[in-house]
This record gives sequence, C-alpha cells and structure tokens, in this order.
Amino acid sequence: MPRPIAVTVGEPAGIGPDLCIALADSPWVDRLVIVGDPRTLEARAERLGRPLQWSEYATDSPAARRLEGGLQILPVQLPQPGACGTPHPANARSLLAALECATDGCRRGLFAALVTGPLQKSVINDAGIAFSGHTEFLAQLLSAPRPVMLLVAGPFRVALASTHLALRDVPDYLTRARLRGVLEVLHNDLQAKFQIERPKILVCGLNPHAGEQGHLGREEIDVIAPVIQEMRDRGLDVRGPLPADTAFTPNAGPADAILAMFHDQGLPVLKYAGFGRAVNVTLGLPIVRTSVDHGTALDIAGTGKADSGSMLAAVELAATLGDA
Amino acid sequence: MPRPIAVTVGEPAGIGPDLCIALADSPWVDRLVIVGDPRTLEARAERLGRPLQWSEYATDSPAARRLEGGLQILPVQLPQPGACGTPHPANARSLLAALECATDGCRRGLFAALVTGPLQKSVINDAGIAFSGHTEFLAQLLSAPRPVMLLVAGPFRVALASTHLALRDVPDYLTRARLRGVLEVLHNDLQAKFQIERPKILVCGLNPHAGEQGHLGREEIDVIAPVIQEMRDRGLDVRGPLPADTAFTPNAGPADAILAMFHDQGLPVLKYAGFGRAVNVTLGLPIVRTSVDHGTALDIAGTGKADSGSMLAAVELAATLGDA
Repeated sequence: MPRPIAVTVGEPAGIGPDLCIALADSPWVDRLVIVGDPRTLEARAERLGRPLQWSEYATDSPAARRLEGGLQILPVQLPQPGACGTPHPANARSLLAALECATDGCRRGLFAALVTGPLQKSVINDAGIAFSGHTEFLAQLLSAPRPVMLLVAGPFRVALASTHLALRDVPDYLTRARLRGVLEVLHNDLQAKFQIERPKILVCGLNPHAGEQGHLGREEIDVIAPVIQEMRDRGLDVRGPLPADTAFTPNAGPADAILAMFHDQGLPVLKYAGFGRAVNVTLGLPIVRTSVDHGTALDIAGTGKADSGSMLAAVELAATLGDA
Repeated sequence: MPRPIAVTVGEPAGIGPDLCIALADSPWVDRLVIVGDPRTLEARAERLGRPLQWSEYATDSPAARRLEGGLQILPVQLPQPGACGTPHPANARSLLAALECATDGCRRGLFAALVTGPLQKSVINDAGIAFSGHTEFLAQLLSAPRPVMLLVAGPFRVALASTHLALRDVPDYLTRARLRGVLEVLHNDLQAKFQIERPKILVCGLNPHAGEQGHLGREEIDVIAPVIQEMRDRGLDVRGPLPADTAFTPNAGPADAILAMFHDQGLPVLKYAGFGRAVNVTLGLPIVRTSVDHGTALDIAGTGKADSGSMLAAVELAATLGDA
C-alpha cells in the first residue's frame, strides 16, 4: 500500500477548505491525509451543502481507519476557525504548525509527498511573523539552500531563475553562481524526481531577442551563455540562451523543461497553456512538495465557485513524484 | 474594386522571397502588389521548382494588367539580387527605397495597406545606415511620434508599452507620459482601424503579481495605476494593473487588447497561442501596416521549408483593416 499524501488546508478564510472538501469526492480520497482544523472543514462543508464524512488519521493503523471512508484528517486546531472571506492573524502560528507537522511527516518518510493549500502571506505578516511564502519557509525548515520554483501543466514545465522580485532588481540578481545553482537543482530533480534520465533544458535570455548579440543588453553574453557552456562541458543537455518568444514555440525543439529568467517571462505562457490545471512544484527540497498555482481567492470562499482543477492536478503530480 | 495591398519582399537572402512566391498561389494574388526586385523572385522561384508568372504593376490600368494573371510586381532593382542565405550590405539603400515607395503609395491612397517582409537589421547597419527596425523607420517617414506595436493572433491582441529595450532599462522608460501616449494610440486605433466602438483594454503590471501592493516594486502605484485612473476618468474602458500571469487567462475577463509592459511579458504567450499565424501591426501610423511576426530565417531561405502562415495572416489582416 503506497504511503499517504499530506495536504495542508491553508488559509481557512480562503478556498483551501473548499478544495479539500472537493478532494473527498475525488478518486484520491483514500490516499490523502488532510492536515488542518476539522471544525473549519465541517463548517465549510455545511455551508456548501455537502456533509463531510471524516475520521482522524492515526499512524498506528492507517488501513483500519481508512475502512471508515471519507477524509482522513490530522487535526491541527485553529483559534479562529470560522470566518469565511476574512482571514484572522490569530491563526497564523497554527497554520505554520500544520505546515511543519506535514513537512515533518514527509521528512520522516511517513508521507510520500506534501501538497499545500494557499496561505495569505500578508495575514501571517500581520501576526508579526516574517513569512515570504511556502517555498522559502520549507527551504529553511528543511535546510535546503536553493529551492527552485517549477510550474507544470501536463508535459509543459517552466522553471524560474528568479521569483518574487521587483523587475528592476532582476538583472543584478542573476549572477553566474545563482544561475548555476538553479540549473544544477533543475537538472538533478528532473532526473531524481521526474525520472528523466538525460533532461533537455532550454534556457531563455534575459533581454528581448536574447539580447540580440549584445545590442539589447549584455547579460546573455556576460552571464547566461558562459553558465550554459559550463553545464554543457559537464555533459548536461542545456541549450540557449533563446529569445523567450521562441523558447515556448515548436521552433525551439523538444525540452523537458524551459528555464525562464524571471516570473513574468515564464508564468503568463504556462498559466495560459495550463489554465486551471497548472501545478507548482518546489525543486531542491529533500521532500516532494507540490501546490496549487493560485492564491486564497477570499472573495469566492464558500460559494461553490472554486475550481479544484489545480488542486487535483497537484495531488496527482505529488503522487506520481512521491511514488517514484 | 478594392485598392491593392502593397507587400515588400524584405531581405532577398532570407525567406521574404519564398513567402511572396507562396502568395502567388494564395487567394490574395489578385489583390497584391509585390514591391521588390523581380530577378530575386524569379531566381528564388526557379530554386523552389515553381516557375513564376508575373507582370509589372502599372498604376494607369491596374485592372487590365491583372487580367494577365500571376503576381503583380512594382520593380525596385537590387544591386546584388542573387545570394540565398547571405545578405549583402550593397542592397540596403534599395531595400529601404522599396519600403519608402510602398509607404508612399499607401499615404497617397493608391494602396489600401502595407505588408512588410522581414529585413536583416544588422546588414542595413553594416551599410552605414542607422536603422533600428521597420516600426521606427516608418514612424519617422510618416512623422508619427508614437508608434505602438500590437501583435494579433485571431481574436487575441497584445500591445507593448516598451519594445526593443534591455530589460534593465524598462522600469525607468515607463513614465506616465509614455504610458498615457501608448494607451491613447491603442484605444484610438482599436476604434479607427479595428472598428471596435468601445475597446476594452487590460493593462498588466510591471512587477510579479502587479507589485503586490508595493511589496514587489512601486511602479504600479506610482505610474501605472494613476494613468489607468486618468483614462477611466476620461471614459475609456481601461482596467488594471493586473498580474501578467492572470491577464492572459479567462479569469481576467474579456478584453479587446491586453497591454503588456515589456516585450517578454507579452510576446511569449501571444506567440505560443498564435504559433505560425501571429501578425505584427503598427498602430499610431496614418497608414495600415502589418508584418510577419518572424525574422529573415536565412538558414532556410530557398529550401521550401518556410512557413507562410504568418505572411498569409498578415495579408488577411491588412485587407480587413485597410478596407475598413
């Protein structure tokens, strides 16, 4: 019997609870352990008019528990479980505790993978906790120095060399050392997690037309091309720098992953191509972690309008990678 | 009888001639005037194993000439018409003369629109002529102060607030005055050329997540949002700034055009979505000008591998806009 997949509910005022309740009706239900507050889920289920059947997850006899049917929950109580649409900073510490608990289960091999529901960053900051996102939090928790963000939509994979950075800070951020680190993590995890023996990686330029031989910026010549050459000298199948408006078309040739230099170079096309089914994967961690590609969507929490496509895709990919 | 559409061949060593020869087999053949060197086209047609039937375009009796069948050519001789794959700087002045001639015909109302084949910028520069692209050249020729680049693929339209600029120069380039100018041209030409009575325009942010309330850059707060508000106060249907990875998805709602802040924010998704049929349109000119969305492709000139999809789409859109 494969190990369970841990799913954190995320911000209780957002659509995280709606998505977890949707999972109860999915073929994955027996494979999952929801890490969160049962009262939140019960209240949301009632609001959605869909009574929730659940049992407490117990590590000693998981098979027996599973026979009861419904969702398995590993309870992490919240001080303010109720509000829908209005996040409460009082929940911040417990939400992070749930994340730590699920991560710890993955690290200890109890869970095959971690799927995270969306958190509201600003509310956690309002509670006086420095938190810049799941990726950074997990990297610190797991002592992983170089997390890499990869977005997946079916066979289409886009990694980012820089993530949540003001656009004007991007060019100086992209040093040879950072780019080298990202390419190493990407290559290694495509092998280790995605089971691709010899990953083909396409690298975008930073500037329009990949700098047009230095006429539109020199970062391709000074930073990107030399690092690509280094990787090729080490035998890796890394090509580029390619103009970003070529890299995502059939003209660029086949690729197992495309490395974009910054957020808005890679994500608009990935999210357009994979609308409603894109999954965020954190590479460079000692565990498998996937997540939805969207935020908390506070405005539609509890309305029944939340689309669970990305959550289902995140669970499916977590299972594939976690069982590999 | 509608006025003809002028098509410049572009760089004779690239695929421009191949595309013009392909037009001879298209339903558009009787509507077109090819502006270029007949010897180049004849030689390329022979190489492609497709004999070229043509006649010289004459402004006095176009209908009579057209009865002869084949391509109508307005001849502009090149000093070095022959080489395939190897551009010659000696042709630069004549290539620009062809462009001027075709543009002049549009300005005088002889032609309904201009479609341009690709030029090799570097070769024109090698000839000692400052030339940074068709768009800038035409804007100067036509005394148009604010050309705006719009890419079209079917119903999908993406305009750019900045074009061929190193990424690190983009944030400071995007002043309120420039953004206002681009939005005015975009709005006016969607009305005047695309016949959209009340154009809906979506504006992307500059930074990831449109700056996340200033946490990831302040350009949205300081520049973009105030200009959008100004436009809305003037009654225009302009919305944003939106995160670029939302703007191109159905979640953003309907739009007649999306304004991206820079080249690699807008074009990768447009070219992915419209692969092989995307068209470049220059707004803000007193004439209709469209072009292919690709370069000279020197490596496949004369091989029969050139895809004429973008050229056909450029002619079709030129006809639609030119007849409007």
